[in-house]
Formats: sequence, structure tokens, C-alpha cells
Amino acid sequence: MKHPFETWQHIFADLENSGQSLNIQIRRALILAIENGLITPGDQLPSSRQLAVLLGVARNTVTAAYRLLVDEKILVSKKRSGMFVGPRPKKVGFAAREPVHTGHFAPKFAQTPSRYRHFNKPRDWQKHRYPFLYGQFDPTMFPVNDWREAMRATSTVREICVWAGDLIDEDDPDLVEQLRVQVLPRRGIFADPGQIIITIGSQQALSMLVQLFVGASSRVGLEDPGYPDLRNMVRLATHDFTRLRIDREGVVPDAALCGCDLVFVSANRHCPTTGVLSGQRRRDLLQAADDHDLIIVEDDYEADLVLEDGPEGVPLKAQDRAGRVIYVGSFSKALAPGLRIGYIVAAAPVINELRILRRLLMRHPPTNNQRILATFIALGHYHRHLQRIGGILSRRAQALGGAARRHLPDCIIRRDCGAKNFWVKLPDGVDGQALEVSARAHGVLVEAGHVFFASARDGRHFIRLGFTSITENRIERGIEILAGLIPTGSR
Amino acid sequence: MKHPFETWQHIFADLENSGQSLNIQIRRALILAIENGLITPGDQLPSSRQLAVLLGVARNTVTAAYRLLVDEKILVSKKRSGMFVGPRPKKVGFAAREPVHTGHFAPKFAQTPSRYRHFNKPRDWQKHRYPFLYGQFDPTMFPVNDWREAMRATSTVREICVWAGDLIDEDDPDLVEQLRVQVLPRRGIFADPGQIIITIGSQQALSMLVQLFVGASSRVGLEDPGYPDLRNMVRLATHDFTRLRIDREGVVPDAALCGCDLVFVSANRHCPTTGVLSGQRRRDLLQAADDHDLIIVEDDYEADLVLEDGPEGVPLKAQDRAGRVIYVGSFSKALAPGLRIGYIVAAAPVINELRILRRLLMRHPPTNNQRILATFIALGHYHRHLQRIGGILSRRAQALGGAARRHLPDCIIRRDCGAKNFWVKLPDGVDGQALEVSARAHGVLVEAGHVFFASARDGRHFIRLGFTSITENRIERGIEILAGLIPTGSR
Repeated sequence: MKHPFETWQHIFADLENSGQSLNIQIRRALILAIENGLITPGDQLPSSRQLAVLLGVARNTVTAAYRLLVDEKILVSKKRSGMFVGPRPKKVGFAAREPVHTGHFAPKFAQTPSRYRHFNKPRDWQKHRYPFLYGQFDPTMFPVNDWREAMRATSTVREICVWAGDLIDEDDPDLVEQLRVQVLPRRGIFADPGQIIITIGSQQALSMLVQLFVGASSRVGLEDPGYPDLRNMVRLATHDFTRLRIDREGVVPDAALCGCDLVFVSANRHCPTTGVLSGQRRRDLLQAADDHDLIIVEDDYEADLVLEDGPEGVPLKAQDRAGRVIYVGSFSKALAPGLRIGYIVAAAPVINELRILRRLLMRHPPTNNQRILATFIALGHYHRHLQRIGGILSRRAQALGGAARRHLPDCIIRRDCGAKNFWVKLPDGVDGQALEVSARAHGVLVEAGHVFFASARDGRHFIRLGFTSITENRIERGIEILAGLIPTGSR
Repeated sequence: MKHPFETWQHIFADLENSGQSLNIQIRRALILAIENGLITPGDQLPSSRQLAVLLGVARNTVTAAYRLLVDEKILVSKKRSGMFVGPRPKKVGFAAREPVHTGHFAPKFAQTPSRYRHFNKPRDWQKHRYPFLYGQFDPTMFPVNDWREAMRATSTVREICVWAGDLIDEDDPDLVEQLRVQVLPRRGIFADPGQIIITIGSQQALSMLVQLFVGASSRVGLEDPGYPDLRNMVRLATHDFTRLRIDREGVVPDAALCGCDLVFVSANRHCPTTGVLSGQRRRDLLQAADDHDLIIVEDDYEADLVLEDGPEGVPLKAQDRAGRVIYVGSFSKALAPGLRIGYIVAAAPVINELRILRRLLMRHPPTNNQRILATFIALGHYHRHLQRIGGILSRRAQALGGAARRHLPDCIIRRDCGAKNFWVKLPDGVDGQALEVSARAHGVLVEAGHVFFASARDGRHFIRLGFTSITENRIERGIEILAGLIPTGSR
């Protein structure tokens, strides 16, 4: 069959809406049309000249796409009569759609994760003009060329032999080695390969530690305020937890902490208040751990990302002589969250159990990504990247600090040296959640603070302002708009 | 400082032991030497001519590596005096190593995953001559060039903007679309985007379903024999489970099954016996689910990998009119386990809870891999790859079947049409575990069958023989060696 012009217009309607090359887009569109039955075996395609005119592309582009499709036997070229859709292997065909049933499941859930309060960042944040978000990633900072080099280096046939297989409970030895030799020693941490396991970001590191250590009767301590997704994880494992008190520096080693079996702390940067534990507080904390047989999980989620010379940088783990600290790190903040690579450093018996647990949960993080990252670090790209983005983020921090002082005089604004966010107490009577909603309508994204607190009402006058996702030149205007949304009666 | 010849020999001793290019290997070796303090800022490097002679490579190769290191400010080139190690940003330095403590942790584990019996495949299986393993992946089957094309297409700046960020609880929409349009309909499954979630292989799909549905009081049914890592997962969540009876076809819908809340079945290919449920048995199973308010998790781990025209191919899910089947699929067997990509198709309320659970467990599978796979499928490479490896595996199955009939006449050998392994009952008195050990010493890897059974002694006379990892030309000799190890008294 020969289709009318309109069919081809329809098939190629979405062209140019993707970042992929025209050759690839043309092939994708044709294969999809065949899969959907829009064109069927034996149908004739437009000539390369006709299609080139229709799409407004060079004829060579169409010829090259056709040739590849012929190589793959998706199209068939017949001498002097043109290009046709090739025959297809038979396929199972059912016209049914899944009926919508919702009643069976809910009564059988052993867990209902949806009932907890959590972050609710807009998924389309890149479309907002003033995204003062934390953790979300400004893709212009990604080291595209260096990453591509590492990617190419790990896609030779011999490299693929290494990463395509099932590692069962192991990790790519090259990534473990790079962590050991190039990443951890700069933080004062020295570990054997048997003391390291790779995870799907620090999120999986924390969730596996919860699964390994937290049962219904465990006494587990969490910073309050603190990281909400950790609190929710712990709630999946046990009904109760101890709220650890936070002061200007971060966690306080008081009686509540000493009564725990296991505590989660962020010594190098408290989330969300930006505090950093002093040297004395760290010694007190390690001493308390020794005195009360306490395991400390240290979440060093921002490690390596140094903006200004600050007190942070050396983790608690580097001072841990008794082996009581389990260290969690990540490449999400410093490189890209989409890659999902983090790790745990701990005593070998803990890592051994985690390996078997991880095997049951999901085997291991994808090996190709482990290997690309290892090569990226080994070539020096990681440390160079850190220097570069440290400078960019530092300038943003200054711009945001200045704008906040100018436009938000009635707010109490805090950012300890080196932090990647500001923690803002709003004037009395101003609610963070209401402000988050009204700001969003004006293209300004901020994060209401209540979500960090175990009890929602404790945090209702706070917001967090991040600057990893907003470019420097938009900061001033964004804060100005935000200031205009804070009711004047309250100022 | 100018180092002696021997230092450079030492630094480059491991060259050529990796699959990466010489340029990259030279840079990696130098950066590592700097990181380790073997050479320090200000030290002079050999001239490119000297190093080229030392390494036996072209001078251009050394020059290019040096130039890139200069660009990255790792080396400094000084006119007329040569190449030197550049200055380094200050680093934290500690000489301590973690003290070895093992006593703190064990009493605090809420779980001890290491106590369960599980597969114990040798990690160095690629070094054995006759690996009759299942699931392990022969890397020569990997579609290197097509994968590289998809990788390149998804590493443009614009594509990286899509995948580098944090999707929180979402998935790459392109992969979900390719599953919906190109993968699932061929199996008779039609799903909306809201009915699909991507996982780290089918392993994570199963483990999340266990976490969502299985509490201490759940009545959960598992095939016995069946997949051991699923049994171990369930044991982490509850003390008890119901053993589902297996006959020639697979799971039997009897009273034990009907008394469960949730059952895990592999309708299209029972693991390890290779049985496939008949049409009548499928109807009975779905009817039983309706009559007894039962949720069925269907593990279709081998889907798409078609060796011969067999009865399998259409999952239970395709016939599920009542929406009681939760479908688990994977790309591990058909493409590469190292990529760790699987998925769940289920009613939207289940997927919604799984998204929040997954967010807490690890956020989402790495987006770059999701996107590469989406492009790989969209370009038709996936289906072409399936045809190619289907042919290779089919020839191996014939070779292994023939060799087993010739050399193992006293064993009962089973492989249902289309299966990717043989299930072998050894002669009376021959123990599978003992045979696994003695065969390994002769370079022959087989898997003892006991691990598939809830009670170890039920399976002691079985072994599994796989052929995904062994090339066709080694099969005959491998089986011959294996036959020689079965005590003649027993035959």
C-alpha cells in the first residue's frame, strides 16, 4: 500500500522535539509506526528525496536512516521500485486492556508508604523561573565531555565483558579501588575493599542500614528536625523512634541519644539547619558511643562539595578509633543524582551482611555506571569537576545571601559556612506551606520547612532556600518576588 | 625531583592489563601515582620520547596523554626544561586505618541475611572451561555496536539534562513508553503508564512486592522447589510461608494455594524444573484467585527470550480479566544482568504505593541506563538482538540435550520446550552438592539442586545444567567430563 502524504506527516509529527540526532529520530518514528500498525509489511515508503522535502532535512540524512533500517531488515529495498516495510516475525496480539480494579489490594498491604509526609518538589521544576530548591541538579554543571570520555573508555568489547555480567553480591573492583585511593583518603578515611559497598545513592545506603539494624524493638535515634525520607524509612521498620535534639551545631549528645542502640547523624552538615558539629562535640559524641555501646550512622551526603573553606570536610568516621561509625557517602550531590551512586564504609562484618541483604533486595547497582564513574575518577575528572562547581555554587551562595539580607529583613536567615542551602525562619504569623504555594504561582519554588520535623507544627514558620538548581543571574529577582509575597502585616 | 627509571617502570607496571586505551591507561597510572604520593608536585616526568621507549608505545600516544593532563592542570609543561607534576589543592591527611572491631554489631542486627542457604556460583566462573551455569551471561552475545549507538544518542547535552537530575519517584518516560508500545503488547499485555514501574532487575521487583505485601501475619505461598532468593526475601519479612506443590507443569492450584493472601508463581517457566502451565491450569489458577481473593505475582523472568516455538510466551497477566495478577519482567536474561533493569506491571494503586516505597528505598533506577535502553528498544535493536541470541541458545540447547543423552544415560534429564536450562535427577546415591564440588575441580561448573528446595534434603539428588554461559563447542566435552565424575557403582 502507498500511504497519502498526511500519514507520513503524522508519523513524523514529533520530530525535532527530542535531543537525539535526526537519523535516530527518523528511525525511531518509522519503527514505532510499524509497531503500532500504522504501516504494515509491504507498504511503500516515500522516496528519500520526498521524505527529505517533507521533513526539511538533507536527503543524505534520510538515505542514511533508510540504509540502517535495511541493514536491520526492518525495511526492504527493491530495485527500481523503492523502499518497503519488511516482513515481521509473528507477534502475539490481544486487544484487551487491563480492567481497573482497586479494591483487591489495599486490605493486603503490609505497608502503606503513601501515608507519610514527604517532600513534594514539583516534577516540572525546570519550567519554573526561580527554583530555590536543594538537591535538584542544574544540568549545565554536568561535566559532559569528561563523562563521555569515561563512557567511551568503558564500552570496548573487553570492558563490556567485565560489566555486562551478574556480579551477584559484588561491586566493580575498579570503583571500590578509586574510592579507597582517590576519594576517601582526602577525607581522612582509610578502608580496605572489604569495608566498602556501593549503593543506589545514599538513599539505598540508609534504607539498607535501617533494614539491617532496625527491628520492632530497636531503639533508634533520629535528628529532629532532620531528613524526612530517613524518618519515613524508619517508620516502615518500627513504630517508635527517639527524637535527637538539635542545637546551633547539630545533634546534642544528651541522655536521649545515649539511650539508643543506633543513631543517624549528619555531623558535617545538619539537614536542614546547616549546622556543623564542633571538634569538642564530635569527641563527646564518639565518647558517648563508646560509653553507651552505640552505633553511629554518619550521613555525609554533601561530602566533597566544598564551597568555602569551612569547618566541615573531615567526617566523624576519620576520628572513629573504636570502629563504631558507619559512614554513608554519595555522588548525587557532587556529580548527578540521576546516576544514583552512593556507598557505605563500615566494619567488614556489617558489609558482609549488607552484601547478602543487597543481593536479595536488588543484587547490585548497575555495573556499567560503576565502571564509568571509576574511570571518570581515575582520569582526575572528578576532582577537577569539584573545583569548578565549588566556585559556581559559592558565587550563588553569596548572591542569595546578599539578596536575602536586602529583601527579607524580617526573616531570620541562616547559612553556616560552606552550606548548600539557607534555612529561613519567617516572621511570626507567616506559614511556610502557604508561602510555598503562593510563591509557586509566581514561578518561585521554595521548600516549606514542616516536612523536616517529626511533628508538622514545629516547623510551620520555616522554609529552606537552595541554590544548586538556580542560576546566579536569577537569584536577586526571585528573592524580590518572594519578599513581595510575605504579608506586610507580619513584617 | 627526577625519579630513576625503576620508579616509572613501577608506575606503569600494570599497563595493558585493562581493556581501556593506552592514552587512558597512561593518564590513570600517572594520576594514581600522584594521589598515592609516589610522585609529588614539582617532580619531573620522563620526556615523551623516553616514556614511549619505556612503554613500547608510539611517542604520539604519550604526547597526547601528557597534553590532556596539562589541560587538566595535573601536569605543568615548562618551556625547554620539560614536564612536571603540577601543584595540588591541599588535602586532608590522616595516617590512621580503621581498627578492626567486630563485636559491636552482631547483637544489634535486626536481620541476619547471611544465615540462609543460597546460590553459591563461583565469582570467577569465566575462568572455568565448562560453565554449565544458568543466568550468568556470555558477554560475546552482547550487542556491543547497537548498545554503543544508543549510548551515544543519549549523551548529547540535551539528553543529559533529561537524565542527570533526580526523578524522585518517577521513571524515564521514554522507557515506560517503549515497554508499553514495543515490549508488552507482544506478550498480550496492555498497560497505561501509571501501571508500570521500573526496578533494579526483577530481583528488586520481587523484593519490593514482598516489602509491600508481606508482614508477619501474611499468608504467602511460594513454589517448592522454587527461586531461592525469593524464599530468602520472604524469610526476612515473615517466619512462615506456605509451600506450593509443583507437578509436571508447575504450580498446582490446590487447597494450600487457595488459603494464601498472595502467591508468587512462574507460570511461563517453572524454576528450576522448566515446566510451563497448560491453558487449563492457567484458567484454574485465575479462577482460584477470584474465588479465594488471592493476589498472584507472576515472575516472567525469561520473557522475550524465545528459543523454540513453545507453549510459553503468553503470560498469565494477558488473561487476567480481574486485575489480580501483578506482573514482573526483566531485561537481565534477555540483554545483560549487569544493567539491572526490570519492571512491574500492576493496577495503579499498587504502583502508587511502590513508587513511594521505592523512593524511600533508593529513589529510582539510574536514569541514564533507563534512557539508553529506551533508545536501544526504539531503534529496533532489542527485537533483532532477541532473534539472534534465540538462535544461538537454541543450538546450545540441542548440543547439550544430545550430549546428556549420550553420556548421562542413568540420569533423568528434563527440559521442556523453550527452556534455558536442563533439570537433572542424578542416579540414586549420587549427591548433587558433592558432584558440584568434584566437577568444579575439573573445570566443570554445575549447580546443585538442593538450594531450590525449602528443605535441603528434598533436592539432594538434583543438579541444574544451564547453557547461557557456555559456548556450543565446549558442551560435549564438558558433559563427558561430568559423566566421568558420577560414581560408576551408582549407574
